[in-house]
Amino acid sequence: MKKVAIIMGSDSDLPIVEKGVNVLKEFGVPFEVHVYSAHRTPEEAGVFASKAKENGFGVIIAAAGMAAHLAGALAARTTLPVIGIPCKSTALDGMDALLSTVQIPTGVPVATVAINGAGNAALLAVQMLALSDEGLAKKLEDKKVNDRAKALEKDAKVFAQFNN
Amino acid sequence: MKKVAIIMGSDSDLPIVEKGVNVLKEFGVPFEVHVYSAHRTPEEAGVFASKAKENGFGVIIAAAGMAAHLAGALAARTTLPVIGIPCKSTALDGMDALLSTVQIPTGVPVATVAINGAGNAALLAVQMLALSDEGLAKKLEDKKVNDRAKALEKDAKVFAQFNN
Amino acid sequence: MKKVAIIMGSDSDLPIVEKGVNVLKEFGVPFEVHVYSAHRTPEEAGVFASKAKENGFGVIIAAAGMAAHLAGALAARTTLPVIGIPCKSTALDGMDALLSTVQIPTGVPVATVAINGAGNAALLAVQMLALSDEGLAKKLEDKKVNDRAKALEKDAKVFAQFNN
Amino acid sequence: MKKVAIIMGSDSDLPIVEKGVNVLKEFGVPFEVHVYSAHRTPEEAGVFASKAKENGFGVIIAAAGMAAHLAGALAARTTLPVIGIPCKSTALDGMDALLSTVQIPTGVPVATVAINGAGNAALLAVQMLALSDEGLAKKLEDKKVNDRAKALEKDAKVFAQFNN
Amino acid sequence: MKKVAIIMGSDSDLPIVEKGVNVLKEFGVPFEVHVYSAHRTPEEAGVFASKAKENGFGVIIAAAGMAAHLAGALAARTTLPVIGIPCKSTALDGMDALLSTVQIPTGVPVATVAINGAGNAALLAVQMLALSDEGLAKKLEDKKVNDRAKALEKDAKVFAQFNN
Amino acid sequence: MKKVAIIMGSDSDLPIVEKGVNVLKEFGVPFEVHVYSAHRTPEEAGVFASKAKENGFGVIIAAAGMAAHLAGALAARTTLPVIGIPCKSTALDGMDALLSTVQIPTGVPVATVAINGAGNAALLAVQMLALSDEGLAKKLEDKKVNDRAKALEKDAKVFAQFNN
Amino acid sequence: MKKVAIIMGSDSDLPIVEKGVNVLKEFGVPFEVHVYSAHRTPEEAGVFASKAKENGFGVIIAAAGMAAHLAGALAARTTLPVIGIPCKSTALDGMDALLSTVQIPTGVPVATVAINGAGNAALLAVQMLALSDEGLAKKLEDKKVNDRAKALEKDAKVFAQFNN
Amino acid sequence: MKKVAIIMGSDSDLPIVEKGVNVLKEFGVPFEVHVYSAHRTPEEAGVFASKAKENGFGVIIAAAGMAAHLAGALAARTTLPVIGIPCKSTALDGMDALLSTVQIPTGVPVATVAINGAGNAALLAVQMLALSDEGLAKKLEDKKVNDRAKALEKDAKVFAQFNN
Repeated sequence: MKKVAIIMGSDSDLPIVEKGVNVLKEFGVPFEVHVYSAHRTPEEAGVFASKAKENGFGVIIAAAGMAAHLAGALAARTTLPVIGIPCKSTALDGMDALLSTVQIPTGVPVATVAINGAGNAALLAVQMLALSDEGLAKKLEDKKVNDRAKALEKDAKVFAQFNN
Repeated sequence: MKKVAIIMGSDSDLPIVEKGVNVLKEFGVPFEVHVYSAHRTPEEAGVFASKAKENGFGVIIAAAGMAAHLAGALAARTTLPVIGIPCKSTALDGMDALLSTVQIPTGVPVATVAINGAGNAALLAVQMLALSDEGLAKKLEDKKVNDRAKALEKDAKVFAQFNN
Repeated sequence: MKKVAIIMGSDSDLPIVEKGVNVLKEFGVPFEVHVYSAHRTPEEAGVFASKAKENGFGVIIAAAGMAAHLAGALAARTTLPVIGIPCKSTALDGMDALLSTVQIPTGVPVATVAINGAGNAALLAVQMLALSDEGLAKKLEDKKVNDRAKALEKDAKVFAQFNN
Repeated sequence: MKKVAIIMGSDSDLPIVEKGVNVLKEFGVPFEVHVYSAHRTPEEAGVFASKAKENGFGVIIAAAGMAAHLAGALAARTTLPVIGIPCKSTALDGMDALLSTVQIPTGVPVATVAINGAGNAALLAVQMLALSDEGLAKKLEDKKVNDRAKALEKDAKVFAQFNN
Repeated sequence: MKKVAIIMGSDSDLPIVEKGVNVLKEFGVPFEVHVYSAHRTPEEAGVFASKAKENGFGVIIAAAGMAAHLAGALAARTTLPVIGIPCKSTALDGMDALLSTVQIPTGVPVATVAINGAGNAALLAVQMLALSDEGLAKKLEDKKVNDRAKALEKDAKVFAQFNN
Repeated sequence: MKKVAIIMGSDSDLPIVEKGVNVLKEFGVPFEVHVYSAHRTPEEAGVFASKAKENGFGVIIAAAGMAAHLAGALAARTTLPVIGIPCKSTALDGMDALLSTVQIPTGVPVATVAINGAGNAALLAVQMLALSDEGLAKKLEDKKVNDRAKALEKDAKVFAQFNN
Repeated sequence: MKKVAIIMGSDSDLPIVEKGVNVLKEFGVPFEVHVYSAHRTPEEAGVFASKAKENGFGVIIAAAGMAAHLAGALAARTTLPVIGIPCKSTALDGMDALLSTVQIPTGVPVATVAINGAGNAALLAVQMLALSDEGLAKKLEDKKVNDRAKALEKDAKVFAQFNN
Repeated sequence: MKKVAIIMGSDSDLPIVEKGVNVLKEFGVPFEVHVYSAHRTPEEAGVFASKAKENGFGVIIAAAGMAAHLAGALAARTTLPVIGIPCKSTALDGMDALLSTVQIPTGVPVATVAINGAGNAALLAVQMLALSDEGLAKKLEDKKVNDRAKALEKDAKVFAQFNN
């Protein structure tokens, strides 16, 4: 199975990224985690992206805050799908990272998820890999059924609390 | 090859969506175009999404403006990857559609591209399909080389204009 | 008397929603509380809304955060008035939920109240029911008089504190 | 049948408001249209709202731009439901009117619709009146069916255009 | 000397307003403090404003949060200058109150100060009264000299800390 | 009578400022108009402000766009009340000028009006001067009565158009 | 004299950039103009930046719109000062480009100017070069004197228009 | 070597500014730290800027919050490059200071860095001085190499943590 790369711009993004790591583990998808910065280690980031396909990766997830260039910088150097996680930092409530990640001009797509949305980034990566992996697709269906069941349990609990 | 579905919330989004259609044609990716609204035809939208996989689709692209629920509503009913295009309308300069498309809570990912970014939405869909289709992957590489060449031609032209 | 449905997208919205529950209790309006998500349990949400009228509901209140689709998704499946409460979450200070709730295109109205404004959502529901219930209308008038009296008491207290 | 009042803060809001007037005519709901400003004619606005119930009104719709106080000012003086339409003006793209209309503190609800959303404001008023008028409720159901049919026609047309 | 009225929409605004009260005390300007809400006690607010001039007031200061209508509502009923203080509340970081206070249409001016800027609101009121009171004008000049001196002391202290 | 100074940062602000000039003429208030920039002619701006009181001015109005420093720069050098008009320019829809004008820290108040709100700026200046000029105060009352009458005429016209 | 590089992300930014070119010509500063994109030609952009110093450049100016990564991408590969011009594009009024350019994390500074502010970008470059070139410094002083004179002429003209 | 001036508008900005002081110390660049306010001590700020060049300064760094006029006010009175640090204060999350600092009109450039970005402001000043100081330029190269090495160490650590 193709691997997923999770790249974060700074190791301070680790608490956010770990939610995504856990999703990948849950699905049994192989992955690698790296700290590469579009600004401090642009060469390494570029080399990683340009060799990602031949190194067995299928999807790249990039998490960064502020003027979050990382996802776009990686996408510029690969034809693999790149998923961007805008991270909230101390000012502007994450809006800077969101716009820097999602507003990429035509030619270099970045699949952007919600601010700090590492869980959905990982799920999206699994969905992409599942396009050619029926086993993964089945696990996604199972998780959807399971999420629904858990949500309905919560409904039952709240309903009971207020409506007796 | 798996098909791409392009769903728009209103036929007024057609001029935006057509840029994506052209990209899919350019790559020879089969597609279907629909007008389904999360608000006016929620059942049809839901049925389409829930049957998309068995009907041979691999990726769904959803374009909508204002409180753009379409991508999220489709993603709620499928495990296929869903790509959201926030469309700019008469007020708020597209910010409403962007936030409504990208800020989906954990469990139901939507791969959001730039406001009106239909070209990148289609490219992203091709990238996903190319994960298991080396022919498509080759075309993506070719396009990247080509885009680069065209950009360098523009550089040469501007350089000549200003630096003689 | 027709019932009011209070639907929240996640049980984490409960602390906000409870202010609305208390208002309905205060007015003696019958209600039901549910956890239905536009993304995790879209079918249940849709079925609830489409059967709400025949099940004796008059008004639906929907509370959700982030890309808050819930109110619009319910409104798409009923002709009952739907009231939306945008909930503030960890990023963007509630602006995402506000725009996702209020910017619904023509054809499917959602009556949006302030961010986290569950009290006003419930009052608005009571006002709607009071259109055909003079007893309720009287209670609303009484509450208005009472609110005014309490506000004037506060004025008297502050006036005394600063102006002697 | 109870009447709907449509109040606009300035006669320059008339082109927006007319979309709502047309919806009320379509449903055969009696209405009155007025120009009352929270700032230029606050007394008249206040008197209108405080007597609206005894004068046979069931719902008040208020349209205003900029620091749009009108809906809140009317709601302060009546227990009838008040619907607010934030109008876009020359600066800030309607955000000022939206926040001024929707962010009303607890005690005085305003049912806010989208920026310039007069059509939905009128539909919402009809939904409220339909709570005690099965004829109106039937018309709302018919319109929903009709809207769906028209949307599906558009889907058929677009589908035919792109998929042959 | 004419009095200054300080009106707050809710007694929860008191901690902000007190900074303004202290400035007025410092200048020996007579004042009255009230809690009047544009929504809960609109009549009292209106009566206060319309009688403020004959009751010996020269300037009205209004502090309110969220959809802050108070300053505009008072200004609508008096020709005295009205100063608006937008108060920050739990969502949107004060932007809602700022836009609701400052974006008043032509005909009814509100002199808006910074979010939570009660000190400047009071200073502005003193400046207005000082137009016909040379004693006050002198005190304002003295304060300006004093503020400058205190700022220069801070400069000296910081300069010494870093530059020896 | 004390004069009003109208200072604009650039002569391109003249079309906005003229609405304020007309109001001052209507009230017979003496005024002077200048183009002083906080950035291009800071000395002249500073000298003007610091001598404004002794030169017979009572109020200073400052209009500027983008990072609109003018009102604050003038206010820093006078104890006269300074009114700021944020002007909308080509980007950001006036938000930059609004925040640069209104968010002045404690000690130097600027009375900010709406974006492009020159009419209200002039009215506010008249209100300040009217504190010690009963003739002006009377004219303000008359204008308020007149504005109300004109607004009610518009109401009558719109009412007649829609309600016969 | 060291050269200034003006890099734009797309030749569609040329009309904005030309204002900066004219300033450099006016000061007789040698320059080169290029079209390099952080996304379409990242290698060329990177090589250009990393060799800029040895190729005789002193300052790099970068203009880009949307998720404007260009200035940051160049700054990541050089220790020369990099000036960023955020360009306004079709949505979000330039806010996306501004935040993507200015919010760069610690370690890689970008000197950001106003949206579309190419003139100031060029002036800033001249100021940097003038640190070691008294001739340029003199020209900057002359321009400042000249700008002031032109502004005062405008003042004289406007003053004459309104105050006779 | 030319000195760097660090001016802050208020001594409350000191914790932010100190990060910049440390960078200058690290590079051995001489500096002076001052507290000058564009509003409380405009004369001193103006005099400092207009004499900065003859007093041996090469670059001025200005830090201020809210309607942050300081950088622009200094830049108006010198031809030295001025770097602006927008400081985050209690409301609006730093957006007010950012727009007030960066959106300066043509003629008076301010090199703006990220909100609270004092470290990058100091680095930018060093880059400017290094244009004519090869020793400094070498130190900047060394720091870049060092930053890269530290980033790669973090990568190695995170890689080891997740990928064994």
